[in-house]
Amino acid sequence: MKSREGMSERNSAWLWQRIRGEGETLVNGEPLLASFFHSTLLNHSSLENALAFLLANQLGNTDVQPMLLQQVCKETYASEPQIIDAATADSLAHYDRDPACKYFSMPLLYFKGFQAVQAYRVANWLWRQQRRALALFLQSRIADVFDIDIHPAATIGSGLMVDHGTGVVIGATAVLGNNISMLHSVTLGGSGMGAGRRHPRIDDGVLIASGAKLLGPITVGRDAKIAAGSVVLSDVVEFSTVAGVPARLVGAANKSVPSQDMNQCFDDG
Amino acid sequence: MKSREGMSERNSAWLWQRIRGEGETLVNGEPLLASFFHSTLLNHSSLENALAFLLANQLGNTDVQPMLLQQVCKETYASEPQIIDAATADSLAHYDRDPACKYFSMPLLYFKGFQAVQAYRVANWLWRQQRRALALFLQSRIADVFDIDIHPAATIGSGLMVDHGTGVVIGATAVLGNNISMLHSVTLGGSGMGAGRRHPRIDDGVLIASGAKLLGPITVGRDAKIAAGSVVLSDVVEFSTVAGVPARLVGAANKSVPSQDMNQCFDDG
Amino acid sequence: MKSREGMSERNSAWLWQRIRGEGETLVNGEPLLASFFHSTLLNHSSLENALAFLLANQLGNTDVQPMLLQQVCKETYASEPQIIDAATADSLAHYDRDPACKYFSMPLLYFKGFQAVQAYRVANWLWRQQRRALALFLQSRIADVFDIDIHPAATIGSGLMVDHGTGVVIGATAVLGNNISMLHSVTLGGSGMGAGRRHPRIDDGVLIASGAKLLGPITVGRDAKIAAGSVVLSDVVEFSTVAGVPARLVGAANKSVPSQDMNQCFDDG
Amino acid sequence: MKSREGMSERNSAWLWQRIRGEGETLVNGEPLLASFFHSTLLNHSSLENALAFLLANQLGNTDVQPMLLQQVCKETYASEPQIIDAATADSLAHYDRDPACKYFSMPLLYFKGFQAVQAYRVANWLWRQQRRALALFLQSRIADVFDIDIHPAATIGSGLMVDHGTGVVIGATAVLGNNISMLHSVTLGGSGMGAGRRHPRIDDGVLIASGAKLLGPITVGRDAKIAAGSVVLSDVVEFSTVAGVPARLVGAANKSVPSQDMNQCFDDG
Amino acid sequence: MKSREGMSERNSAWLWQRIRGEGETLVNGEPLLASFFHSTLLNHSSLENALAFLLANQLGNTDVQPMLLQQVCKETYASEPQIIDAATADSLAHYDRDPACKYFSMPLLYFKGFQAVQAYRVANWLWRQQRRALALFLQSRIADVFDIDIHPAATIGSGLMVDHGTGVVIGATAVLGNNISMLHSVTLGGSGMGAGRRHPRIDDGVLIASGAKLLGPITVGRDAKIAAGSVVLSDVVEFSTVAGVPARLVGAANKSVPSQDMNQCFDDG
Amino acid sequence: MKSREGMSERNSAWLWQRIRGEGETLVNGEPLLASFFHSTLLNHSSLENALAFLLANQLGNTDVQPMLLQQVCKETYASEPQIIDAATADSLAHYDRDPACKYFSMPLLYFKGFQAVQAYRVANWLWRQQRRALALFLQSRIADVFDIDIHPAATIGSGLMVDHGTGVVIGATAVLGNNISMLHSVTLGGSGMGAGRRHPRIDDGVLIASGAKLLGPITVGRDAKIAAGSVVLSDVVEFSTVAGVPARLVGAANKSVPSQDMNQCFDDG
Repeated sequence: MKSREGMSERNSAWLWQRIRGEGETLVNGEPLLASFFHSTLLNHSSLENALAFLLANQLGNTDVQPMLLQQVCKETYASEPQIIDAATADSLAHYDRDPACKYFSMPLLYFKGFQAVQAYRVANWLWRQQRRALALFLQSRIADVFDIDIHPAATIGSGLMVDHGTGVVIGATAVLGNNISMLHSVTLGGSGMGAGRRHPRIDDGVLIASGAKLLGPITVGRDAKIAAGSVVLSDVVEFSTVAGVPARLVGAANKSVPSQDMNQCFDDG
Repeated sequence: MKSREGMSERNSAWLWQRIRGEGETLVNGEPLLASFFHSTLLNHSSLENALAFLLANQLGNTDVQPMLLQQVCKETYASEPQIIDAATADSLAHYDRDPACKYFSMPLLYFKGFQAVQAYRVANWLWRQQRRALALFLQSRIADVFDIDIHPAATIGSGLMVDHGTGVVIGATAVLGNNISMLHSVTLGGSGMGAGRRHPRIDDGVLIASGAKLLGPITVGRDAKIAAGSVVLSDVVEFSTVAGVPARLVGAANKSVPSQDMNQCFDDG
Repeated sequence: MKSREGMSERNSAWLWQRIRGEGETLVNGEPLLASFFHSTLLNHSSLENALAFLLANQLGNTDVQPMLLQQVCKETYASEPQIIDAATADSLAHYDRDPACKYFSMPLLYFKGFQAVQAYRVANWLWRQQRRALALFLQSRIADVFDIDIHPAATIGSGLMVDHGTGVVIGATAVLGNNISMLHSVTLGGSGMGAGRRHPRIDDGVLIASGAKLLGPITVGRDAKIAAGSVVLSDVVEFSTVAGVPARLVGAANKSVPSQDMNQCFDDG
Repeated sequence: MKSREGMSERNSAWLWQRIRGEGETLVNGEPLLASFFHSTLLNHSSLENALAFLLANQLGNTDVQPMLLQQVCKETYASEPQIIDAATADSLAHYDRDPACKYFSMPLLYFKGFQAVQAYRVANWLWRQQRRALALFLQSRIADVFDIDIHPAATIGSGLMVDHGTGVVIGATAVLGNNISMLHSVTLGGSGMGAGRRHPRIDDGVLIASGAKLLGPITVGRDAKIAAGSVVLSDVVEFSTVAGVPARLVGAANKSVPSQDMNQCFDDG
Repeated sequence: MKSREGMSERNSAWLWQRIRGEGETLVNGEPLLASFFHSTLLNHSSLENALAFLLANQLGNTDVQPMLLQQVCKETYASEPQIIDAATADSLAHYDRDPACKYFSMPLLYFKGFQAVQAYRVANWLWRQQRRALALFLQSRIADVFDIDIHPAATIGSGLMVDHGTGVVIGATAVLGNNISMLHSVTLGGSGMGAGRRHPRIDDGVLIASGAKLLGPITVGRDAKIAAGSVVLSDVVEFSTVAGVPARLVGAANKSVPSQDMNQCFDDG
Repeated sequence: MKSREGMSERNSAWLWQRIRGEGETLVNGEPLLASFFHSTLLNHSSLENALAFLLANQLGNTDVQPMLLQQVCKETYASEPQIIDAATADSLAHYDRDPACKYFSMPLLYFKGFQAVQAYRVANWLWRQQRRALALFLQSRIADVFDIDIHPAATIGSGLMVDHGTGVVIGATAVLGNNISMLHSVTLGGSGMGAGRRHPRIDDGVLIASGAKLLGPITVGRDAKIAAGSVVLSDVVEFSTVAGVPARLVGAANKSVPSQDMNQCFDDG
């Protein structure tokens, strides 16, 4: 059973202490990865430094070298420390909700959904600083490397889990609340050519199962569940479950938080 | 509002002049990307040279170096200049139809859907020159780098927009007309083992929304719309809209061109 | 027509002889790829050596260099030669079932679905040797490079074809039999947080068409067919066809083996 | 004529201000190098940061990545700021003594002699911190990349100019004072197997011309000149000039500082 | 015996025809190098294209990519075709004078002395176009990669052989005539800080043996020979041989051209 | 004091055991190098495997990848195990004769002179197998990477120490005996254009000090010493010491083996 201790004090320093503790065990267990664990985990004094190193290493290329991206990430985190709070919550979201995530360090080390979201958070900060060319460059790199396409103008709260991640698309005017879970191939897409909001708003606690497509400026109320493969074209009321192509209401009054339960299924009545 | 001037004279030289103009602004705006904008845009005298550079840079690896791929691309464009006309139309399709595409240079610089289609156009030329091994190698590189799998034997007209792009699959005997729009995760798949045509034919002006799967040697008539998440197993008449798994007729007599409107939704009646 | 000779003697040595024979033709046909064909095919004395080279080349990076991964692969194959038998069956599955696969060498050289499955087989062996950190590292690399996410703890038989492959997800407790075919964007996903088996069991001969999502600890009986875009939440009886969101029985008593026929369609009655 | 202003205030901040000023001109003059000048010069707030970036970029490889070396350099400079004072003096030594060095930024950007000495200064600090393995690794990288072999245990003062640099060898027990100039192919070599000091001691202001070999625990007095191609096997008195194989006294009582004059010749009487 | 045919018609087209002919034999002889020979030799239609490819491949790095350097080289050759005439003469100089050079293609493929001189010729052209920053960047790359330091402002005639090459230094105001041979570790160095010419002038036909150092604005007359290890501080009359530290006249009235004979020795009387 | 134990049993297995023992200490001492020590030392079961890995890693490039060079090295060692005996003797020569070489593992890990000689031994084997193109390619790579130019046709015995190494040149018809020591910038050069032997023969036990140039088909008798900076144009009798430009006899009847004593000096009488 995974540790739930310290739920009340889980800030980034707390998390980093646990990740480093795992790193100290890992580094002795697999010689081929000793330097990987050292350079990615043990070498850093904080979660933000580790993230800056890892994102730079994954997204740097001959156009923009890793050392330069590392500096951009550090500048982002120094300027807006709440981004590290969000990264902490994202990381713990994976730990708490994904049975395959058995260690605190796994999202950072291995999960492309987590890594892509953290890179988006840097791109979003750049976007808000009017450094839009670099934000778009990063979006393009994220799409190439992780196959996840999040527009840097999108608004995303904390505690987001993107599981597996390949194929996720989140549009420029999408707004996501806190503690949302989504799986691979989820689309929060626009529709049509109009100005103004073109993409969905997703409230807290929502679970969007794999392959679901939510299109247009709709709203999904809190603690709702979107079943796998659904195509959602209209608002979804809070606490309800929708499914199908197009999606229809198949359940109501969810008693628990879908994004925590991670039950992608629905009552196939 | 994006510029619509010069619709009648939008050839590749016209487009290249605008892209370079944007490049001159961009290069001074973001020092980290100065050389990227210079080497990708300002350094070239024409769209074909810029494309050859960019595709080589994205698809080259230790097996075939960028300089060699650049030469292959240049040879392709010199031999069949219509490919650059098609690239011009593809680029403008993104500019005209995608609200997130605010500059003429964005497809070239950032959009993997656009880049993958241009790489396919080179692979298709190689295929027709009987250089099939290199065409298949390129297909494999495109699938690895962009996560888009287009068989080099497929036939594709001009003015194609592939938005986002991750997960798109287009089979060997597919035939696509002009001015088509499709989104990520679209499949134009084969079915069964028979000889002859095994994949769909898509006529002009069709919009295929995200995640739609069109299977077998069916025909989709002009200006039809395939809704998101649909599974299409039979012919679709022109001007109509189909949706669902399997797809059924949900609307008829579209009055405008779906691939221009980019309305992925349908009347959820 | 592709050769079916020697069906009874198609072991890895037999296959390797054919692949090398093709390589000798290819190497003279495309000068740009001469070293690629030499280093990937002609340079090796056996399928296992070629696979070790190719996987190392695709998955190595600055964290773990190709030469080290090559050694891990060789160690795997030496320790468990049945993995090469499975690779042989996988390779022939592509050759036999995919009309676009015209040569024995194509899966090895070009098909990311095949390559990802072979990399999983190495990761799975590492997982069973308790080298879990390296197994998870490989899973992460496979997901980044091929956009295919197979948990190393999953159990997979031989003769698997994963066509195109982008977006496939197979969870940790999934169990796959022999001679299964699946296409891109297929999910064998978990559901919920419980312990024990959380993912599907797929029996021999099943075909899972593109984009189908199978969720939870369900069982799909032998020679069943899952239509494209289906969302399957409950057991599927053997020899039957299911389709839809959620999937319903649409056909029964398949007379041939769906994974061989590769007919993704179903009777759209 | 090069600027001599501010001789009294030439600290690292003063130098960095001038280097950055040059960088601002350079970045607009050569588009191909815009990012090079930006990333190497304009992107940094101090000489130490620029040096850490540059050395990491030059010496990093697949064994130790640039980002890790950058961190080592920063740690070195933070721990012992005098190393930056020495780097400043070395840089100005090139500017003052080399007619081909027309800009303050040239040693940093282009001169392998300067770069190798700065890398030695980091290796030497590591050596003194008992991180001898990393010090030896760096020595080996410096020898591979710059063809200059300086043992990290050597003691070197500030204001050293190593012009051109290829082939320079400085042994472990060599001791160099301040404001020394040497050219390429100079050897400060050991002789024999004994313990204790085995290499030369060079006092302040000495000029060692190209190809000179000084062997064994000899002493070269201040402001002496060693002519090109000399082989020096015994002590050299201060202010004198020696030449030949083996070297003999050819001049005495130098009236100016040889390392400043850079006159490699001697009176060929 | 190496071919001397066609002495009167040995232009770059003639040479390229021979090099390509050798390439066609080589490409079938060593499979590991098949693509190397193809990409370096067979893939090109002229010596200038092959040189541009090779220099770009050797000198490109993360600061300036190979494709960009290739373009710079091509621009150079198009603007000043005499540089290719000089490259042709340099290449034939190796073929004619070096017993280890048994094929016309060897200098291009393997000899760092030849490659460094060709890169200098590009840097020199850039220098004369006032693109001095890029010229200095190239000088620095040549010094790092080939360990040969030629200032781009130096003036060098055609038919230069630099054998082995490591450690050669040629200063900014050096002037070299035609048909000169020099070996590794040769220095044409400056002396002192004065303005004006500071480096040697070397006339046609001179041989400078390994390790010789020529310092200051001296002149070496035509068909003179500088013995190995000499330190030359004063003028050398034509047809004579000098040797020693400092160099003295040891022979006079050379009857043949020393740079052709390649006799590094002298009469040790 | 360095260990001299087991002088009689110092074969490659004995040496490898000591190197690995050192590796086990090193890997825990410097986290940044943990994977370097693991991949270079601990990961291998024998000296030949470690050498093949290391040489491949140093000399591989985009033209010939490391994995292919590794295979060439392994093939060489399997075909002619005496090469590993020679490598063992070379490695121990550094350990025994170089006071800066304090560990058995240092030549393998850090010394470019040792690494270049081992790469030559592979190139020499290829030359003798008539794979001359690959041998010349390797020679060129060694010259680029290590700045040491040894013709693959040269004949070199075992127990060779090349200290520091930059600038060493050894010609095609040179013949070196056993237990020779030489320093950087040593040339064993040819002279003139004649057929037949053009380079020196060096007998057992000779020491050639830094920068010495030996030219033409001369013979240096056993246990002779060539002083630093000498230019040797005629035979040197056994047990004697020569020095100067040109070299003259300066000492006779050496009582010990110069290559062991490593005394570069001579009696400056």
